[in-house]
Amino acid sequence: MTVLDPGLIQDHNHRLLRHVASDYEHLGEQLARRHIDIDAVRQKVAAFGVAIPSWGVGTGGTRFARFPGPGEPRNVFDKLQDCGVIWQLARATPGVSLHIPWDQCSDWPALRAVADGYGLGFDAINSNTFSDQPGQAHSYKFGSLSHTDAGTRAQAVAHNIECVAIGQRIGSKALTVWVGDGSNFPGQQHLRRAFERYLDSARQIYAALPDDWRMFVEHKICEPAFYGTVIQDWGSSYLAASALGPKAQCLVDLGHHAPNVNIEMIVARLIAAGKLAGFHFNDSKYGDDDLDAGSIAPYRLFLVFNELVAAAHEKLAFEPAYMLDQSHNVTDPIESLMTSAAQVQRSYAQALIVERSLLDAAQQANDALLASQTLKRGFETDVTPILQRVRLDAGGAIDPVAVYRASGYRQRVAKDRPASAGSGGGIV
Amino acid sequence: MTVLDPGLIQDHNHRLLRHVASDYEHLGEQLARRHIDIDAVRQKVAAFGVAIPSWGVGTGGTRFARFPGPGEPRNVFDKLQDCGVIWQLARATPGVSLHIPWDQCSDWPALRAVADGYGLGFDAINSNTFSDQPGQAHSYKFGSLSHTDAGTRAQAVAHNIECVAIGQRIGSKALTVWVGDGSNFPGQQHLRRAFERYLDSARQIYAALPDDWRMFVEHKICEPAFYGTVIQDWGSSYLAASALGPKAQCLVDLGHHAPNVNIEMIVARLIAAGKLAGFHFNDSKYGDDDLDAGSIAPYRLFLVFNELVAAAHEKLAFEPAYMLDQSHNVTDPIESLMTSAAQVQRSYAQALIVERSLLDAAQQANDALLASQTLKRGFETDVTPILQRVRLDAGGAIDPVAVYRASGYRQRVAKDRPASAGSGGGIV
Amino acid sequence: MTVLDPGLIQDHNHRLLRHVASDYEHLGEQLARRHIDIDAVRQKVAAFGVAIPSWGVGTGGTRFARFPGPGEPRNVFDKLQDCGVIWQLARATPGVSLHIPWDQCSDWPALRAVADGYGLGFDAINSNTFSDQPGQAHSYKFGSLSHTDAGTRAQAVAHNIECVAIGQRIGSKALTVWVGDGSNFPGQQHLRRAFERYLDSARQIYAALPDDWRMFVEHKICEPAFYGTVIQDWGSSYLAASALGPKAQCLVDLGHHAPNVNIEMIVARLIAAGKLAGFHFNDSKYGDDDLDAGSIAPYRLFLVFNELVAAAHEKLAFEPAYMLDQSHNVTDPIESLMTSAAQVQRSYAQALIVERSLLDAAQQANDALLASQTLKRGFETDVTPILQRVRLDAGGAIDPVAVYRASGYRQRVAKDRPASAGSGGGIV
Amino acid sequence: MTVLDPGLIQDHNHRLLRHVASDYEHLGEQLARRHIDIDAVRQKVAAFGVAIPSWGVGTGGTRFARFPGPGEPRNVFDKLQDCGVIWQLARATPGVSLHIPWDQCSDWPALRAVADGYGLGFDAINSNTFSDQPGQAHSYKFGSLSHTDAGTRAQAVAHNIECVAIGQRIGSKALTVWVGDGSNFPGQQHLRRAFERYLDSARQIYAALPDDWRMFVEHKICEPAFYGTVIQDWGSSYLAASALGPKAQCLVDLGHHAPNVNIEMIVARLIAAGKLAGFHFNDSKYGDDDLDAGSIAPYRLFLVFNELVAAAHEKLAFEPAYMLDQSHNVTDPIESLMTSAAQVQRSYAQALIVERSLLDAAQQANDALLASQTLKRGFETDVTPILQRVRLDAGGAIDPVAVYRASGYRQRVAKDRPASAGSGGGIV
Repeated sequence: MTVLDPGLIQDHNHRLLRHVASDYEHLGEQLARRHIDIDAVRQKVAAFGVAIPSWGVGTGGTRFARFPGPGEPRNVFDKLQDCGVIWQLARATPGVSLHIPWDQCSDWPALRAVADGYGLGFDAINSNTFSDQPGQAHSYKFGSLSHTDAGTRAQAVAHNIECVAIGQRIGSKALTVWVGDGSNFPGQQHLRRAFERYLDSARQIYAALPDDWRMFVEHKICEPAFYGTVIQDWGSSYLAASALGPKAQCLVDLGHHAPNVNIEMIVARLIAAGKLAGFHFNDSKYGDDDLDAGSIAPYRLFLVFNELVAAAHEKLAFEPAYMLDQSHNVTDPIESLMTSAAQVQRSYAQALIVERSLLDAAQQANDALLASQTLKRGFETDVTPILQRVRLDAGGAIDPVAVYRASGYRQRVAKDRPASAGSGGGIV
Repeated sequence: MTVLDPGLIQDHNHRLLRHVASDYEHLGEQLARRHIDIDAVRQKVAAFGVAIPSWGVGTGGTRFARFPGPGEPRNVFDKLQDCGVIWQLARATPGVSLHIPWDQCSDWPALRAVADGYGLGFDAINSNTFSDQPGQAHSYKFGSLSHTDAGTRAQAVAHNIECVAIGQRIGSKALTVWVGDGSNFPGQQHLRRAFERYLDSARQIYAALPDDWRMFVEHKICEPAFYGTVIQDWGSSYLAASALGPKAQCLVDLGHHAPNVNIEMIVARLIAAGKLAGFHFNDSKYGDDDLDAGSIAPYRLFLVFNELVAAAHEKLAFEPAYMLDQSHNVTDPIESLMTSAAQVQRSYAQALIVERSLLDAAQQANDALLASQTLKRGFETDVTPILQRVRLDAGGAIDPVAVYRASGYRQRVAKDRPASAGSGGGIV
Repeated sequence: MTVLDPGLIQDHNHRLLRHVASDYEHLGEQLARRHIDIDAVRQKVAAFGVAIPSWGVGTGGTRFARFPGPGEPRNVFDKLQDCGVIWQLARATPGVSLHIPWDQCSDWPALRAVADGYGLGFDAINSNTFSDQPGQAHSYKFGSLSHTDAGTRAQAVAHNIECVAIGQRIGSKALTVWVGDGSNFPGQQHLRRAFERYLDSARQIYAALPDDWRMFVEHKICEPAFYGTVIQDWGSSYLAASALGPKAQCLVDLGHHAPNVNIEMIVARLIAAGKLAGFHFNDSKYGDDDLDAGSIAPYRLFLVFNELVAAAHEKLAFEPAYMLDQSHNVTDPIESLMTSAAQVQRSYAQALIVERSLLDAAQQANDALLASQTLKRGFETDVTPILQRVRLDAGGAIDPVAVYRASGYRQRVAKDRPASAGSGGGIV
Repeated sequence: MTVLDPGLIQDHNHRLLRHVASDYEHLGEQLARRHIDIDAVRQKVAAFGVAIPSWGVGTGGTRFARFPGPGEPRNVFDKLQDCGVIWQLARATPGVSLHIPWDQCSDWPALRAVADGYGLGFDAINSNTFSDQPGQAHSYKFGSLSHTDAGTRAQAVAHNIECVAIGQRIGSKALTVWVGDGSNFPGQQHLRRAFERYLDSARQIYAALPDDWRMFVEHKICEPAFYGTVIQDWGSSYLAASALGPKAQCLVDLGHHAPNVNIEMIVARLIAAGKLAGFHFNDSKYGDDDLDAGSIAPYRLFLVFNELVAAAHEKLAFEPAYMLDQSHNVTDPIESLMTSAAQVQRSYAQALIVERSLLDAAQQANDALLASQTLKRGFETDVTPILQRVRLDAGGAIDPVAVYRASGYRQRVAKDRPASAGSGGGIV
């Protein structure tokens, strides 16, 4: 079951087929000169997938305002439908990552059936202890897993365990734990004790984890807490994941670091330590801007993938989870997600075509110029034809945004989905 | 008309009078050794005021959540009442700065009368073109004063002119213009044209300004736009204010700069250029955190005041406007505002007791160590007794937070003011 | 007169000719689909040049150490010879920018004749008042143009005027003024007075400028001064350039900004204000790292060129000066400079192939996704064939680094040029 | 044996005795109201010491220039003499930390005897593999402990082991290992392998460590490597120290972090993990500025000490090493070091007078305002009288800088110590 008419895709593709074939052929020749088999690269890219977070298909906002777009999804079924469109057109996003309670649902088997119908599976499940829900006994205003009050911590632990239970019903294999815990004033929180309480709570969640599950610990330098957070960087994330056990690993969100931090270095360290959980992809210029992946610093995204490809090349055992985690404030979320998924694929493909033997030799010889140029040649290569072929081969659209716009999908769903509540505001 | 019973204040003060007298006397002796007259300093501090933004008395939040406190003000009259409490207890905040449309009101004379009753006046008025209001013809999703659409720009201009009209009715003498205009993607906006459109719109507002008004141009490096903003730094702010004319000046919000930026240097430059409008005080560690003034980097706040006191000492003509602009997410806003106002006073008092002749001589001689120690001696001095005496002399509380807590004000108003809407959320 | 045997270049090129022709043809087809004429782009790139700073051909270092390479230039004639190699092979760097007193020379006509022989001209001349020279009357330890001592300022002014005189003898048309003036402690310097003294000195230099010269004011946020610098950002640079007059403009060094600053926005503002002097190209991750241009953030470099190409496209009158300004600590400077010049050309070429009408329309319609994708398509395109053809057509090397390595130039000059003094150190 | 005439100190103190007594008494009364015993605080401060790095008594510089002062120490004996002056006057710096090979010496027993004479001991010893020494077999241009070449790594290991041997002769109990290893280009270094090689080398050094020694692993985000360093942050430092064993711990230099990083949080984490080695104190605004401790952000320094005092208060077992590590570019190093040591003492004293029970209770109750005010009250208190009494009681100077200037020490040694070599330069 597809959301859009496959004929529409075929019609659009038809016009571009000739160019894709010619471009792919020429790129193949160029890569052959570098002793790289374009078809092998293409197959790896085709096997790659990045999950969509369910909340990503809604319009995001800032503390100043939210400007909703038309046809925003009303519930998790609408969200799945939007994910179905993205998957159908761009063929890069087979998984969906749910968020509880935002995606709370009264009939999980039905949801799973719908997902199956779209060809979608469920990725890691996300808990939410950074905002209060109506009727909640304890508030998270001053923390959740690290709260000074035992009752609040117990509530947060129970919520995470409930998320695991939900995840088991839909086929998830991992729980992502991000908390907003922290402080806004020096002195507000006893820094060591808050971390100890976090660990104590996290251990209870970990104990409830099924054998084949993983727990993803996500760090963030700031926001919503602005003086200090409890899991502020990969060091604290690593301390926590190590204290918890082998099923706990460290998740890297590209926007959760201090300015100037070398993210690919963190990736390298976590791979070496066997603690890399995976990624939340997005881009940023100033902080956790949650901009579209690769929109600001595409070379940085490539360098992250270079670490992943290098580790795979060296046969290291690791299995990162990939997810987009962006806030779409000024675009149609479906368009942004298709485009960002392709950007992630692009970085992966570029990393795959790096001439590893040349690079290794230059590194070993401390030939900094040759090494850097060898690495960068992968990035400078326009791998668009590979991405187009991957989509084409899988029944997707050569130009997903064009087909999406032509499909009138947004206008159609806007009829059923009423305009969402206003523009936020008042929070300054 | 005071909001709280003055007797409560007197009772509290009574217990502390002896200590204040003793501390003030000893500090006076210490300052006399530096040839500084404590009473002269006290009089200057007593004459200093910093405005409260009306939105500051509500609980703030982040894009992740808002955790409302009890007894939040429902409207501008409630806000004025809270400001009345702050003014009564801490005696540092004689002005209130309104925000339109948040403080829209059907009877401005009545509002002014109420303010008069509390002894409050009205500071700069703030327009809002960064969020949409119900029924608004044009959306600000893609900008306001710099929007590509002429109708949207006209709407934003008209709103600002309306703000001036409101301000005239309540006695304001300045319009603060901060826009959220900018872009989230490289390429989204034509950078030069957006600035030109901003200037064109701003000129229309400027033209509508009464003769005795000023227009405050406020810059911000990011948020809500995350790739670039139209008035991104003091350079662009200065270009704009210069293009507009002498009534336009540059407002400095302490949290609106790139990391590491030397804010006191900007203050020095704007003073020299005759373009310093004034300040939005708050503190920050990571970005526009809107933390309480001086809570993270009190020395930085002192250094800003050092520039102001130095300029006054040298008889430069300038008249900065002072306002707190903070987001109170985890404290009672009334407590934070009283405390922050005192922190601003503290910085001012510390700057006043710097031994200027010694400092000048050391600077002239490039005696970096002596100069820095001379400046810092002002900061290291505990001027608490001066602040206590200023409050005491004006009928305020020696310990405003203690009296406020004892007064039961919050609990009392909470009965009339229903809990405000939930915790935000869904915006990620 | 060429430094290297042209036959060597031809031999190398010969092997690659077929691939370049094929790649160029295919790229031409791709661009034609976008209605872009590859030959027109190539001609513009061929007409583009970026200057080499004379100090760039020596090995750089840090305050911790310098690790000299073999065959470092001993004097300005050696430097010119190295620049001749770069120019011969990479055909992108027709100008050399001298630095006084490092390039002091007893026979300027002879130097000019040598440069002519290599086909090189002289770009902006650079003064040095950030370090002391043997026998100098006044030290710059506490500043130069802004020093509190009038004698020191006069000495610095005289040095700049001498640089202009030298520049006139070799055909320069601009003076670049970068000073290390600033302070390491709050209070060390009177911030306003230091700026006033700077302006006063700069006015004297400006007054000595020939009619057809420009004065480039270069700002830098920090280093060597670490609390504050006198020309700390483009705002101060603009204030200074405006105070001086029309011949004074603002130079943008890509590494001289606070973290996260949007540099292309500054470029846009300076173009609009008619005050863009030009660029010092390099790259950075943490500060003024002086890494090779485009080695860390190639998209940022492209975005700068996008502003330049857009302004040219819109027929704005401006004539930026382009120079590389990098510290080559771990590479052969000749290799780095050839590679960086090509990287700058690459960014220019990528900006030239942006579909401006599409971009304008998307910007006007606030179609953020389409606008950003249109802009990025230019960047994602591999323009290598254009750069190769430009070099080839001008008699340069298709692969400059390979030819350079094959030439044995470095080993040859190392015989005449003794190893330079040790590894610095002791400065911590 | 003291360097300066004790009579000079007494004369100076004599004039200030009355004020110190009066100030101390009044502060004692103020603290008594907070139930704090000023004498107990004074005794703790008196027992506190911070080491001087031998290189700190020379004038520092930047890559642009070094401006030497008069009378710079020629060798380690001169350096000890300067440290003797600092210790005699300011009574806060009983230890000296040597750096090999800069402090290489042919007669260690003689050196130790001289130190004993001044009352000085030796703190951690520092190795240097970030610069090359004349005659060295292998260059560190491309790394030391992590170099790709086994011979270079072996040389670096051997040097560290030699440092341990030297340290044993003079009574050191710790080896501080900071390396400049890293890369300037993406791709230059294989990030994981470089770290593995580092660990392998470090294990060899660790194995040579005496039983009662510790090894301090020092991280740094950048410089001299500007793309990535091998021990880039506390996470990597912790990974390394954990891999090595219990004698290895993590050293925190206050200037070695990314912008905005919460350093006191790192301190809290390392204390909890039993891995806090100690500190290199300095201050910074932009990077590793090596400014005088507390000169830019005194509250940050206080917050670090708050973590230490809190941990001691809670009886945690840890024994941090304290050292100043600053670059004195514009001051007399002796003056800066005395002033900075007092600044460190000040922060310690301020942390000691924090009302811990009140703070704990406010933290437990999430009373953010009260907690932050309680903590800050410690900082706002002027503890100068305590510091003055500590110096006075130990025979030091109430005003060390004044006595030092009056002593004419610098002018005297300048006669014996010739002006040091020029101002560096040429490294850009």
